[in-house]
Parts: sequence; structure tokens; C-alpha cells
Amino acid sequence: MILPAEVRAAVAGPDVFATALLAQRVETVRVDWRPAPAAVTDALRRLLGDDRLYRRMTAANEEAMRRITTARCVLVDIRQARDVIPGMTDRMLLHAGPPLTWSRACGPMRGALAGAVLYEGWTRSVEDAMTALARGEFQLEACHEHDTVGPMAGVVSPSMPVFVVENETSGNRAFSTLNEGLGKVLRYGANDRGVIARLRWLTTEVTPALATAVRRAGVDLTSIASQALHMGDEMHNRNKAATALFTRALAPHLVDVDGRRKEATSLGDIFRYLAETDVFFLNLAMAAAKAALDPAVGIAGSTVVTAMARNGTDFGIRVSGTGEAWFTAPAPRVDGLYFPGFGPEDANPDIGDSAITETGGLGAFALAAAPAITQFIGGTPALARQYTDEMYGITLAEHPRFTIPALDFRGTPVGIDCLAVARSRVSPVLDTGIAHREPGIGQIGAGLVRTPIAPFDAALVRLAGE
Amino acid sequence: MILPAEVRAAVAGPDVFATALLAQRVETVRVDWRPAPAAVTDALRRLLGDDRLYRRMTAANEEAMRRITTARCVLVDIRQARDVIPGMTDRMLLHAGPPLTWSRACGPMRGALAGAVLYEGWTRSVEDAMTALARGEFQLEACHEHDTVGPMAGVVSPSMPVFVVENETSGNRAFSTLNEGLGKVLRYGANDRGVIARLRWLTTEVTPALATAVRRAGVDLTSIASQALHMGDEMHNRNKAATALFTRALAPHLVDVDGRRKEATSLGDIFRYLAETDVFFLNLAMAAAKAALDPAVGIAGSTVVTAMARNGTDFGIRVSGTGEAWFTAPAPRVDGLYFPGFGPEDANPDIGDSAITETGGLGAFALAAAPAITQFIGGTPALARQYTDEMYGITLAEHPRFTIPALDFRGTPVGIDCLAVARSRVSPVLDTGIAHREPGIGQIGAGLVRTPIAPFDAALVRLAGE
Repeated sequence: MILPAEVRAAVAGPDVFATALLAQRVETVRVDWRPAPAAVTDALRRLLGDDRLYRRMTAANEEAMRRITTARCVLVDIRQARDVIPGMTDRMLLHAGPPLTWSRACGPMRGALAGAVLYEGWTRSVEDAMTALARGEFQLEACHEHDTVGPMAGVVSPSMPVFVVENETSGNRAFSTLNEGLGKVLRYGANDRGVIARLRWLTTEVTPALATAVRRAGVDLTSIASQALHMGDEMHNRNKAATALFTRALAPHLVDVDGRRKEATSLGDIFRYLAETDVFFLNLAMAAAKAALDPAVGIAGSTVVTAMARNGTDFGIRVSGTGEAWFTAPAPRVDGLYFPGFGPEDANPDIGDSAITETGGLGAFALAAAPAITQFIGGTPALARQYTDEMYGITLAEHPRFTIPALDFRGTPVGIDCLAVARSRVSPVLDTGIAHREPGIGQIGAGLVRTPIAPFDAALVRLAGE
Repeated sequence: MILPAEVRAAVAGPDVFATALLAQRVETVRVDWRPAPAAVTDALRRLLGDDRLYRRMTAANEEAMRRITTARCVLVDIRQARDVIPGMTDRMLLHAGPPLTWSRACGPMRGALAGAVLYEGWTRSVEDAMTALARGEFQLEACHEHDTVGPMAGVVSPSMPVFVVENETSGNRAFSTLNEGLGKVLRYGANDRGVIARLRWLTTEVTPALATAVRRAGVDLTSIASQALHMGDEMHNRNKAATALFTRALAPHLVDVDGRRKEATSLGDIFRYLAETDVFFLNLAMAAAKAALDPAVGIAGSTVVTAMARNGTDFGIRVSGTGEAWFTAPAPRVDGLYFPGFGPEDANPDIGDSAITETGGLGAFALAAAPAITQFIGGTPALARQYTDEMYGITLAEHPRFTIPALDFRGTPVGIDCLAVARSRVSPVLDTGIAHREPGIGQIGAGLVRTPIAPFDAALVRLAGE
């Protein structure tokens, strides 16, 4: 058949279709869409076709969404990790993403783990730290298995200070470290003397005042996130408004405790750190998202994703109905903007627990609220809006407290449905930072990443087989 | 002629056209457009048709826009009005809008003037203050004639503290009072004991610490406004982000001066005042806009509007080429949302110098940057965008430093051209607060207002006649 000249085609599937069209000079766009694997089709047929299973799934998902969207998460304390994180022991290091062994750890993860060993004073050099880590002298466990989340490498060692975030609706807690700022920092795998000294300064000089103020203030993080969404933040790659609101809320309490401080660092310098660290609120947004999602873990039959996380080697998800099981695939590459002197060949695959923000209806899912972010991660305000629009297709609810003014105050898409992902072949998109692939270097860019579909498929197949 | 059924018409001018269409069941929208008066048509013909005049006007406007858009306005001090405002004398009260006599002053203006008399201790009761004001015991002058701007009634008395804002590009200064917060406040015409006590608290307890910190910090207001536009503020009715950024910038300096303070109010309480007063930055945005626009006053031939202001009785403008002359019309009524228990019948006509923000390319001209504001002033995010779009039609430039992410970082419309207004019959739109018409009550709502065209016509006719 010869097609008329004005035909334009979008083509998915085998090359033979596109080749035939091109031979007729038909303008052709290749679409990378593939049908679901047979096991997924079977699982979809079972869950959608069996009345009892479908009703159980729907009820379980409603309960999951009720728990997630009614969370009220409050920062109540800052404490040493070993004193508050459940199961944290003296020679343990937590890391971002699904569980990982040293032999499979990527460059920035190794750099950050070695830095934490130095920070704890367990060895004197990076080399000794790497050797000790390779020998298995320290226990490596995933943050998520300890109610904790960490951005990028996400390394937490026993004496690090951590935020204590309480979900007042459900009574559970989540934890995250303090943010070190941008540039050469531990979470991006840097570990030189300046990095370790800054971590120690945060611990000994900044934390005492912040902790006392936080214990008095009890900062409502859900409320701040809700306000900051009306102020151009999406709470993953942009936290400027949230950090400013947090500082403004905490300032009276910081001042009130100043008279009883013993540290050498002036309160003015602590305010300067907060003023210079736009990303400060990220770790709080992450712990709040974790605290909001955890009550939905383990609801039998629910297809709601309760965590997405990357360790720089693997991308993994957890789904409500499958409890604490991880479903993984290789960590994807990031499409982003690079700092001068760096490019895609320098980039590590995607890393960090920060995808918990997207899991909770923020980050890339709320991009339509944050058009200014495109200056930092690339793309355009129109594209930002498209990503949010697309995520409505794979989520179960619109968040009642997180609303987007530019979309006429529509709630952000929240509650990723692994069934909807498997059925539509549309997977979640994430905002993210880009770490150098070598240990010890740090951040080299920021951008967007499309998650692999395989873990969502695998979770669905497991749920259908129960 | 019988029109086909699918015809739909927009009709301007005499009713006869619309009536004829309606008789044929044609869907008809009435548009309130009127042709320009003959004097305006003559002025347009002269300025656009005479090569020499046209070239002079174009060059003058380019110079005006260069001066306005290159301004860098910095808060350098807080001082007593009598010590810094040029021409301010001991028995003088400044007010918002074009010059005004007591006999023509509206309710909230009278209430605010009486409150200022009480604040100064010139009389002991509101009644005595009103009597003294009616007798002409105090000199009433417009803020704008003294390099000053004030929101709503905009009353400034000699011992009030005022922000000192310096335009570092041109070297000129502008002044404004500190913002008292929302609700029952002097600027909305309230004047009871609580209002006066709060003003005194601001003067004696808050100002000393703020002033010392400001003298050390030198806060770049142009930079904060530029950032806050990316955070959902338009710097007239919404200043939440700007106030938070201002607090964050000033906090280290406030803390550094704390040890040397003598006031009873704790620094914590000053931070609480800043945290509770989202509107705090409005007065700074106004002084910065005034400081940016003033260098463009008096450029021969320029049709650029350098001020729009209302005193609750009159709306008035100043245009560059006509120097300090005012062109006025009755103050318009506001279309807005009312607080519970109040309605349009309680509202005073539009009042305040805050339209200086729109004159400088912010406020309603930047509404597309502030979709969340529609919860406060009414309308929808789409309508907010339409207002910004419309204002590009009557302005001469896009602001190089004030950009709108949602419009792909296009600069805000700035430099109102009174010729473009007179020619298009589209007049500027303003964000605004609504004051109760009676003295002593306060704010009852917020909304949008369309300015009258007559002052723009009059200014153009004057320019063409020179």
C-alpha cells in the first residue's frame, strides 16, 4: 500500500514497520513502547479479572492511601544515630538504596562509606578505610531497613546526628542526617579532610543549638512542604522556600536558647549556614515522606509503592502488599545538566534514597509547582508540567494537602500503583543529583531520570501469585 | 441583512448594534470599549505623526527604561522620618496618593491621620485629633512629594521609623514605614489603643535591633524581589517568600547585635514578629520600586509613567515628561474577596501608594508568577496569567532582572506608556487591599482594580501640547 504524502506516523515495536514507512518518505517518530512480558499480562489478568482479588486490592489500596495522605509529620528532635535508629549498632554503616555488598558498591558509595569510617575515627586514611570495608569489618545495611533515609550515598554512621521526624497521625518515626550543603560533600562520595571537618563542625557546633530549638519548637514539616509547594519548591531538587520557612519558624527558638550555649561557633554563623544551604530542607522532606509512607507498609493485597531507592548500582522498590521485600533492576543513567568540565561519561548511575519524595507525591511528581527548577535540571516549564500530568496516570490519589496553584490547586499525584505502571508501561520519573563515578569527587550535575519498569512488573507478579 | 446562525459577535459602542444582533438570536458579548476622546486622538496624531516629536519621545523613553531597569536598590538604614525624609517638618503628616485636603479625605484616611496624631502625642483622643486636623493644625503632604511611599492610607509622622532604601545605580533614596502586620492597623484607618501601642512597640522595641542589623547587612532588595518572583510572590499582595528570604538574610546580623541590645523585647519576639508578618516585605518592595522609578522623573518627551497612587478619594499618576505634575480621576472601586461579615457596600474606594509596585513591573503586572495569590484576591491562575499578558500591551520593556518562570522566564512587563494606554484604551490593573469606608475599622478584603484611563489621557494631551 502506498500512503498519501501527508501521512505522519508514530511507530512502536519491530523495525520492519518503521523501515517500510521511511521507504515511502513518511515522516516517522520511533516510540520506545514495548508490550508487557507474558508473566505481567497473566498477573494483570488475574488481579483485574478475579472479583475477589480485585475487591481486596481496591480496599487495601484505599487503606494505604488513607494512611499516606493523612500523615502529619513533625520534626521533634535531633539525636545521635546510635541512640535513636532502631537496630543501629556500634560498627554499623547505613547506606542509600536497596541492600548492597561492598564488592558491588559504586565509586561514590565507596567514597562516602570510607569518609564515614574516617569521621568515626575507625581508621586514619582513606586507603585503610577502603581495606577495612573490603574485609567486611563494618556491617553495611540499607537505611530503609532502619526507618531511615539518606540523600545520594545516604551513609549514616553511629555518632552522626540525625533528625527525628514523628508522624503524629500514626505514631511512627523516621530519621535522616543533616544536610552538609552543596559541592564537595560526603553524600556525593567526597571524603577529604575538609569534608570530614565540616561534618564534625555540623555535629559538635551546629547540632546542639538546632537540637535544643527543635525540641522546643516541634516544626510541622507537612505544613512547611504544603506552603513551599506554593512557593516554587518541589522538595527534592529545590528546597529554597521550605528552607527559608523552616529557618523563619525556628529562628525565635534558636535565639531563645542562645544564652545557654557553650559552643564556639556563633549563632550568627549557624544562621549563615542555614542562609547558604538552600538544600537544607531536602533531608527533612525525605524523612517526612518516609514517615508518611511507612504506615502503609504490609497491607495485604495493596499495589501501592511504599519506597523507591537507589544505591548507585541498583534501583529498587518496595510495595505495600509485599512488605519489606525489594524488587530491583540496574540503576538508570541520568539525563541532566552538568557543571562546567563534566559530562555524561563522568556520571555515576542514579543514587540515593531521595526518590522517597516522589514516592510521597513530591519531587518530580510535583514539578508543575516548580517551574524555576528547570534552570537547574534542564527542560522547560512546559515539560515540567507534562511530567506531573503523566504521573497522574500511575498514581491512586491527589494529595489533599500538597496542592499545585498552577494546576488550579489540584493535589499532587501520590500513591504509585505498581499495577498502573505495569499496565501502562509508564514508570515514575525522578528529580536527581548526579555524582561523579569515581570516589572522592562529588556532585557534577543534576537532572531527571526515568526509573526501570522491571521492579514494578516483578512486584505485581509476586502480588498476583500470593 | 440576516446573519448566518453560527455568527457570534463582540460588540462595542452604541446599544443599537447589539440590539439588532440579539433580535436575530446572534450570541453577543458586550465589550466596554470606547474610542478615545477627540483631544486624545489629536495628541496621538501629533506624537505619532510628527517625525521630530516621535524620535524625541522614543529616545526619551529608552533613557527612562534604561534608568528604571538598571536600578539596584539596597536597604541601608532605618531612621526617624524627621531625620531623613527631605522636607519633612515637625508638624507635618505625609499621606498616600496625590495631594489631598482634610475636607476631601475619606474615612480610613481620616482614621489613619488621627491615629498618627495620637501616636505623636499631639492630642489625647481621636475626637481632638479630628478637630485639630479639620482646623488645619498639621501640614498634610503627599508621600510621593517627599521621596516616600506608604501602603493604604500611607501616613508618615515625624517620629515614625522609616526604611532608607538607596538606589546604588543612580544614587537616589526612597523611604517607607515599617509594616505593622495585617488586621486592625493604622494604614487601614484603625486607630484604637492597641493600634497605637503596637506602633510604639515597633518604634521603641523592634526598630533599634533591625536598624543596627540593617546598617551592617545592607540588604539587596532588587535581588530578593528577583528571587521571590520565582517563589510565588508578586510583591504587592503576596510577600511571603520575600519576607522569608529577608529574614534569612538579616538573621545572622540580628543575632550578632543581640548582645548589645537594651530593649526589653527579646530577639526571639522580633523573629516571631517577622515570622508572623508575611506582608513585611511589601513596604520594602514599595520603597525599592520608588527608588528605581524616581531617576526617570522629568525626562523631556518621555511618556513613561513614574508613579500611580491613590488616596482613597483620587487616583493619580505622574509621567516622566511632565515631571512632578499629577493627573487624577476619582479613585475606583475594587473587585475582590471580602472577609466574613463584610461586602462591597462597606468598601472604601481604592487607596494607597502600593501601586508603585505595578509601576515598577511587579504586583498585578507579575501576577503570572504568583498563581497561589488567587486564593486571597479571587480569580483563577489562568486569569492571573491573562492580566500579565495584557500588561505587556501597555508597557515598553520586559524587566531584565524580574523574570517569570511560568512564562519561560520572560521579564515582567515594566514601563507603563501613557501613549499605549491612551491608544489601546487598556489601563493598568492593580492588586490591592480593601479598607472599610469608616475610619477606625481596618482591612475588610483584598482584590483587583482597574485604573481609570482619564489621567493617562490627560498626561498624553499635556505632553503633546508642549
